[in-house]
Amino acid sequence: MDSPTFLDQRAAWMERAEALKPQLTRHALAPQSVIRIEHIDFLWQGCAAIPEYPAADLPQQWWTRGKTFLLDFGESVVGHIRLKVHAIDPVIDSPLHLRFFAAETPYELSADLGAYHGRLSRSWLQEEDIHLDYAPVEVTLPRRFSLRYLRVEVVAVPRAIRFDELCVECESAAPYELPPPPPGLDLELQAIDRASVRTLRNCMQSVFEDGPKRDRRLWHGDLRLQALANAVTYRNFPLVERCLWLLAGCTKDDGFFPSAVILQPSPVGSSRVLDYALLLGRTLLEHTRFSGSMELAKALYPLAVYQFDFFREGLGADGTFQNLRHFWVFLDHCRELDRQIPILACASYSLAGLAELAELLGHRKDARRFRAEAEAWRLLARKRLDPELHLLRSGDDAQLSVASQVWGILAGVLTPQEGLRALQALDEHPEAVQPVTPYMTHFYLEACRVCGDETRLMRHLRRYFGGMIARGADTFWEAYNEKDPYFSPYGDPLSNSCCHAWSSTPAWFLRQRP
Amino acid sequence: MDSPTFLDQRAAWMERAEALKPQLTRHALAPQSVIRIEHIDFLWQGCAAIPEYPAADLPQQWWTRGKTFLLDFGESVVGHIRLKVHAIDPVIDSPLHLRFFAAETPYELSADLGAYHGRLSRSWLQEEDIHLDYAPVEVTLPRRFSLRYLRVEVVAVPRAIRFDELCVECESAAPYELPPPPPGLDLELQAIDRASVRTLRNCMQSVFEDGPKRDRRLWHGDLRLQALANAVTYRNFPLVERCLWLLAGCTKDDGFFPSAVILQPSPVGSSRVLDYALLLGRTLLEHTRFSGSMELAKALYPLAVYQFDFFREGLGADGTFQNLRHFWVFLDHCRELDRQIPILACASYSLAGLAELAELLGHRKDARRFRAEAEAWRLLARKRLDPELHLLRSGDDAQLSVASQVWGILAGVLTPQEGLRALQALDEHPEAVQPVTPYMTHFYLEACRVCGDETRLMRHLRRYFGGMIARGADTFWEAYNEKDPYFSPYGDPLSNSCCHAWSSTPAWFLRQRP
Repeated sequence: MDSPTFLDQRAAWMERAEALKPQLTRHALAPQSVIRIEHIDFLWQGCAAIPEYPAADLPQQWWTRGKTFLLDFGESVVGHIRLKVHAIDPVIDSPLHLRFFAAETPYELSADLGAYHGRLSRSWLQEEDIHLDYAPVEVTLPRRFSLRYLRVEVVAVPRAIRFDELCVECESAAPYELPPPPPGLDLELQAIDRASVRTLRNCMQSVFEDGPKRDRRLWHGDLRLQALANAVTYRNFPLVERCLWLLAGCTKDDGFFPSAVILQPSPVGSSRVLDYALLLGRTLLEHTRFSGSMELAKALYPLAVYQFDFFREGLGADGTFQNLRHFWVFLDHCRELDRQIPILACASYSLAGLAELAELLGHRKDARRFRAEAEAWRLLARKRLDPELHLLRSGDDAQLSVASQVWGILAGVLTPQEGLRALQALDEHPEAVQPVTPYMTHFYLEACRVCGDETRLMRHLRRYFGGMIARGADTFWEAYNEKDPYFSPYGDPLSNSCCHAWSSTPAWFLRQRP
Repeated sequence: MDSPTFLDQRAAWMERAEALKPQLTRHALAPQSVIRIEHIDFLWQGCAAIPEYPAADLPQQWWTRGKTFLLDFGESVVGHIRLKVHAIDPVIDSPLHLRFFAAETPYELSADLGAYHGRLSRSWLQEEDIHLDYAPVEVTLPRRFSLRYLRVEVVAVPRAIRFDELCVECESAAPYELPPPPPGLDLELQAIDRASVRTLRNCMQSVFEDGPKRDRRLWHGDLRLQALANAVTYRNFPLVERCLWLLAGCTKDDGFFPSAVILQPSPVGSSRVLDYALLLGRTLLEHTRFSGSMELAKALYPLAVYQFDFFREGLGADGTFQNLRHFWVFLDHCRELDRQIPILACASYSLAGLAELAELLGHRKDARRFRAEAEAWRLLARKRLDPELHLLRSGDDAQLSVASQVWGILAGVLTPQEGLRALQALDEHPEAVQPVTPYMTHFYLEACRVCGDETRLMRHLRRYFGGMIARGADTFWEAYNEKDPYFSPYGDPLSNSCCHAWSSTPAWFLRQRP
């Protein structure tokens, strides 16, 4: 591989990112109800939040040592807890020790944190212990939480205390008020739309985060989907540009476009997801079309072009990809998925997008070359079309998967007509490896649209995202398996992020109906 | 009682206090050793801090989830913990959850906090949980601790972390360096002196606190003793004045001089200890003599005078005091102590001091009147002298107590010669109610001095304060009973303050030797 020529621009790109740092909007949200958690077996995750009395009555309640109460803010938000604490005595005789636990779901709220057994660090759980040396006092908890529910535990106090003006100081780069759903939606689709734009709003912070509870990071894969939803709702294009400048500014010394940026203490790139890197050209193309500004795409075009060399390097003449550099070929959180056809088709799809971008930027020669190469990869992939089933098979074991068909459709390996048939055929092959994340689900829905199968798209949107709504969601989750309420990619559903960027695209599908 | 005329000066007194707010000195103290706690039955409180390796090696140690280490700073100090946290990975994958527990003694350090069973709030225990969103990072814990030992628990971290530049940012209104002991002391007395001035230094903060661990309050009883020790060491007279302005500024609407001030959120007087109120004249007299400034005493003289009306109101012709207003007659933390003779003698002693102050300020008539009345009270008390034992007896049950003799000696109810005999006689009456606090012990030592019994004074100083040193103290304790290592006025020794103002007067006795 030729050594990249754009590395010396990283510092300048970083400065562009810094200059676009957003001013966050703030909105004080008071809790709606004091609740209890009731364990009801047949419900999702076996529990429900039952209102006990209006939270407006909270300032009249006195709490003594060992007492706990639970709050429902009525809406999932992101921000800092703020409250005033008063003691029944005019002066207090000892400090106050309070414990807070912020939760996104009733199940999380009811959990015994001591029993946490996930693979990710327990420190993701949104706990905070504070000691107050005097009262009355106004406090803002130091860390930002993503929450709908809050547990307040009065660990140790001299006598009784009470709380007032308790609220979440909501924060977002988007306005607190959600954009209205597009006209003509029924109630279920309206609810899906609202949850989608709320998810997006909550993830819009100093960058487009993947999840405001966990891991609060800018991921390119999530960003691309957020940018789609953003383009038809908040239209905060400077934030998209900031994120792309940031990612580009963190480009690795070998020229690889990083999959994520960890922002603190100072921005640094992390993770080498090959499919994400290849998609950069598409992200730039879409941003250019949505925003009408070519400046960013012009600057990052060479970077997007360069990513394909990492793929070419491992690509054999027969279309198999040898992962020489141990990239993470993500595509979905699914270990058994054979990734040969999906990555080849994804590369072809990405390169075709880069060709369009090249055309737009006036690089005609590049455009021709990329189109030809994308077509060559398409043909390589097409060799794996099962002549009987009319479905693509992947890898040595000729695996059937949704991912192969979806990426095959998006890349044009299958024509829309063939795609339509393939999507139907999948219904009869439940043994095919299924999508496990909302991320892969997004591409399934895109594939439906490409094939013109709006009925299937809407049916799946209702089943998948409507299914989360029916199970209590008002933001969409990182992980959802309708058959397993306790499914987690991390060994414990307490680790799951229940407001997750890659689930924010229903608003895109609902606003771009043909 | 006449209504007090000085109440409208309270706001002005408060302003004087505010203007004298001290600038605290700071000193970064690094830990000495990483230690372990060993349980050794025959030792005081059954445990010892055993050095494991120099704390200078700490920056080379990596710590993973669930690991804990213990530090000994080599000296009891007051301040904020500051540290830098580094992760083994260049970027961390999740927040860091750390737990700190600061302790004054090895016993406290080794305690299971969950088993705490004291009457005071558990929130006095110096715990702190923090979550850090990134590393490397420098942190200062939010609350001030009084500590010699620190437990650091790595509750939840993604991989290994390490600590460097961990220190206590020591804070005091006095310099960090202790004043040298007076010449001619042997090693034991030098150690006593150092612990005494260290105790005083650690209690000197924005005010003279009673205990920097608990309850961090300005108490007049403690202040008077601290002012004695301060006068012969740090000579920070502005801080003494600030405290007296503060207390005076918080005078109750009925004219009672408050026993304590709670400083936050804004200063407010608390507690009605009659003996403390009566002693105000003495405090002013002593301050005037030490500092050479009469201004404060002039301003607060009417307040000091007024306090005696609260005593006179309940005083019968036979010298018995009827506690009509339910004052707290403190004198010592000793429930069985009969307080009739002690409070009468204490009142006489206080009034005699006020008479001296009146003389000094030119109020001759007052001085005569007070002297006469103090003498009358002396004579009332003297009626309770047991003719056989030559000891004062108190109350309906003619109780024998050290407190009655001590206050009798200080008030002049007993002449120095009688006092000398009384102190000797007490040796043969172990059934006499004994002092239980260092506060009462201070007055016992004063009584020894008044009687000229320096041998007894030094013997007791060595036994009592030297006893604490032998049991590991480097600051003096709030509560000490050599026969009961687990003695606590609050039901659990974990509540005890092991650096307590009213134990700070050995420096006074050692520097004022006749």
